[in-house]
Amino acid sequence: MSNIAAAIITIGDELLIGQTIDTNSAWIARHLNELGIDVVRRVAVGDNRESIVKALDEEIAGATIVLITGGLGPTSDDITKPLLSEYFGGKLVVNERVLAHLKEIFTKRNRPFLERNMKQAEVPENCTVLFNKMGTAPGMMWEKVVSRKSLVISPDSKVSRSPGEDHEEKVVIAMPGVPFEMISIMQDEVLPMLRGRFFSDALLHRTIVTAGEGESFIAEKIQSLEEALPAHIKLAYLPDAGMVKLRLTGRSADKEALAKELEARQGEIADLLGDIVVAREDLPMEKIIGDALLAQGKMLGLAESCTGGFIGHLITQVTGSSKYFNGSIVSYSNEVKHNVLVVQQETIDNYGAVSEQTVAEMATGALRVLNSDYALAVSGVLGPDGGTDRVPVGTVWMAVADKETVKTKVFRFHYNRQQNKEMAAKMGMLMLWKFFSRKS
Amino acid sequence: MSNIAAAIITIGDELLIGQTIDTNSAWIARHLNELGIDVVRRVAVGDNRESIVKALDEEIAGATIVLITGGLGPTSDDITKPLLSEYFGGKLVVNERVLAHLKEIFTKRNRPFLERNMKQAEVPENCTVLFNKMGTAPGMMWEKVVSRKSLVISPDSKVSRSPGEDHEEKVVIAMPGVPFEMISIMQDEVLPMLRGRFFSDALLHRTIVTAGEGESFIAEKIQSLEEALPAHIKLAYLPDAGMVKLRLTGRSADKEALAKELEARQGEIADLLGDIVVAREDLPMEKIIGDALLAQGKMLGLAESCTGGFIGHLITQVTGSSKYFNGSIVSYSNEVKHNVLVVQQETIDNYGAVSEQTVAEMATGALRVLNSDYALAVSGVLGPDGGTDRVPVGTVWMAVADKETVKTKVFRFHYNRQQNKEMAAKMGMLMLWKFFSRKS
Repeated sequence: MSNIAAAIITIGDELLIGQTIDTNSAWIARHLNELGIDVVRRVAVGDNRESIVKALDEEIAGATIVLITGGLGPTSDDITKPLLSEYFGGKLVVNERVLAHLKEIFTKRNRPFLERNMKQAEVPENCTVLFNKMGTAPGMMWEKVVSRKSLVISPDSKVSRSPGEDHEEKVVIAMPGVPFEMISIMQDEVLPMLRGRFFSDALLHRTIVTAGEGESFIAEKIQSLEEALPAHIKLAYLPDAGMVKLRLTGRSADKEALAKELEARQGEIADLLGDIVVAREDLPMEKIIGDALLAQGKMLGLAESCTGGFIGHLITQVTGSSKYFNGSIVSYSNEVKHNVLVVQQETIDNYGAVSEQTVAEMATGALRVLNSDYALAVSGVLGPDGGTDRVPVGTVWMAVADKETVKTKVFRFHYNRQQNKEMAAKMGMLMLWKFFSRKS
Repeated sequence: MSNIAAAIITIGDELLIGQTIDTNSAWIARHLNELGIDVVRRVAVGDNRESIVKALDEEIAGATIVLITGGLGPTSDDITKPLLSEYFGGKLVVNERVLAHLKEIFTKRNRPFLERNMKQAEVPENCTVLFNKMGTAPGMMWEKVVSRKSLVISPDSKVSRSPGEDHEEKVVIAMPGVPFEMISIMQDEVLPMLRGRFFSDALLHRTIVTAGEGESFIAEKIQSLEEALPAHIKLAYLPDAGMVKLRLTGRSADKEALAKELEARQGEIADLLGDIVVAREDLPMEKIIGDALLAQGKMLGLAESCTGGFIGHLITQVTGSSKYFNGSIVSYSNEVKHNVLVVQQETIDNYGAVSEQTVAEMATGALRVLNSDYALAVSGVLGPDGGTDRVPVGTVWMAVADKETVKTKVFRFHYNRQQNKEMAAKMGMLMLWKFFSRKS
């Protein structure tokens, strides 16, 4: 392994009972990766002394950098800070900067500073405090680790104690689990420190976003190119709801040569895949659509029934989307379809709310009401209830329109309510993109 | 530990580079928990033989049930299936049921069945095949595991090989990483099998949802009750954007007595917390609002600017929301605010789009245009751009209205664009709930 190895330990019962989805690990991994640090393992354990100690022992043995999130709150289910303090052989002392910051936060929030909050200002005496400007619990770093037990597991799975490694140079960092606090500490303190401290080969990614074909089809099509890839370039398939992202990852000491080489391979693959290539950059569909609208100088309007505003939400996740997005009429009731989008009452009565005719009138209505150049309209039955023989659960009608043309299409999704909504949003955006890219 | 211990291994480079957020583990943990199976560890490793073998060795040693997700796709970055086959001492053979299912899927999707797809029909000869009706890659189960090395780490962190454990009864299950395929296999095959096979104490949860106060405040307020909890009942604090959920978890052989005991404790805590209690059930805010609207027989309409449809999306995540939700006018442009919501042009010109006056007119406009009993309107600057001295990034004005009253409030969020949107949605829903619960 030529890169620096890192491990992530996530602490918290809420992760093990599934109450919380761990988004921190992905964020940390992505940002370490950009520096050329490989996350080799991620482990989640409960708020439990033995499990935490075991994870620390193992991950410190297996990686140079260990990042810990979670377990640093004010309430009694949190045991991590005293344990870390003990693990690294120090004791807890009140840190004046942290205490002043805490009192300031409590004053600002108009809350009394209680005796139990005092504990939040305590940090292990032998750590470097990583200031948490977004919250109360500071981050902590230990730079020279006396590993209590250097447990080493060799590639052939033999377990041994590795003597003489007791003073190996390692970095262990503990941060609170609240995502924006963790992110703030990583950005302000951890990433700049790691960047300065560790050297490694450049690691670069290049991505091709495709739509409309599956992994196997693509693999068959680019087989010869894939087999010809040199050892320092890897290709990964990342499928996601009707789309497949292909990611080339390269490692080399010569960053500029690597960039050129990756771009050449990316070009060859994209040329071979032709029409199914949506973008040659790792962008979400909403950004791809936004860039295309911006380039054309056109405005978009939506008419959403079953998606309930989800497509509008995705479109407006992109900074600057007001330059090309006028808005969405979320016409969940038929009354709103008629009153606001001016769908004919007899269209709804004769064909139903989930029909080609209704969705076409919703699209032309959105064009007019939202004064837009393009419109996307969606009406369907996401389930689990509300299906009929004629319009079963999972049926979603879509229409895209400009001032000259209306195109309609029906989809049938077979997942649960939330996944059907996500698929409808993604397929709708894809249909829109094909429409104004004139690819359909 | 009285409960059955399970471990989850997630396989895939995409998890270690942070391309994908692991939602599978939380789903699995939540559903195992309901059965009374404790997830004691979750580990994520890359598509790499040594890491996978090491994780298998360790997790099989530390848990009775090991669930593996990921690494089972048709493309060349997937090495898990042959490795598992080898690990459990079998070889790959074509499974006729899987092959027939595969061919059916390819026919239905109008895709050619390619030579490399044949590999997808292969399964280790010594496993039980778990049928995957939602996708191509089957699940696999090994019921009697010959653990290659029984690595045991005792509570005092000593590592030893435990002889005689080589034939310990364990269950190892491998499933594809695509969430809806994993969920389908879990629901149809894995959960019923585990429920029948393992006995354990009943495990019950009771939740109290609070809003408006922090963890420390709550902890101080209920300290005496918390300290008086018996050993078999645990209390956890789960903070989330302006809300804190309190979860009581109890274990006992006597399920009925436990339920009564938990409900009594829940009642005492809720009574002590009084006004800040939003619900005595673990429900998201959108469901709490929906239930309240349904009980009152009232209809809701939204006027969303900066949230872009996100609140409508959340409200419509709830099955049956059409009974109380008419729709949302996502008025991203000022033109739509004026044309559709009939906000006075001079209000926008004089006070700006992000102002108390504009948001109040948006709310009364939504009441009228969407013919609703209650309306919530939101207009703000989420950032990172678009802020001014008067209206800095993070400023969000909200209004709630019925036919008699309009209430307005300004918030200032300090996170990134996406988090500011989430906070705005949550605070908006909370404001709405307080308004029609007459708690403000």
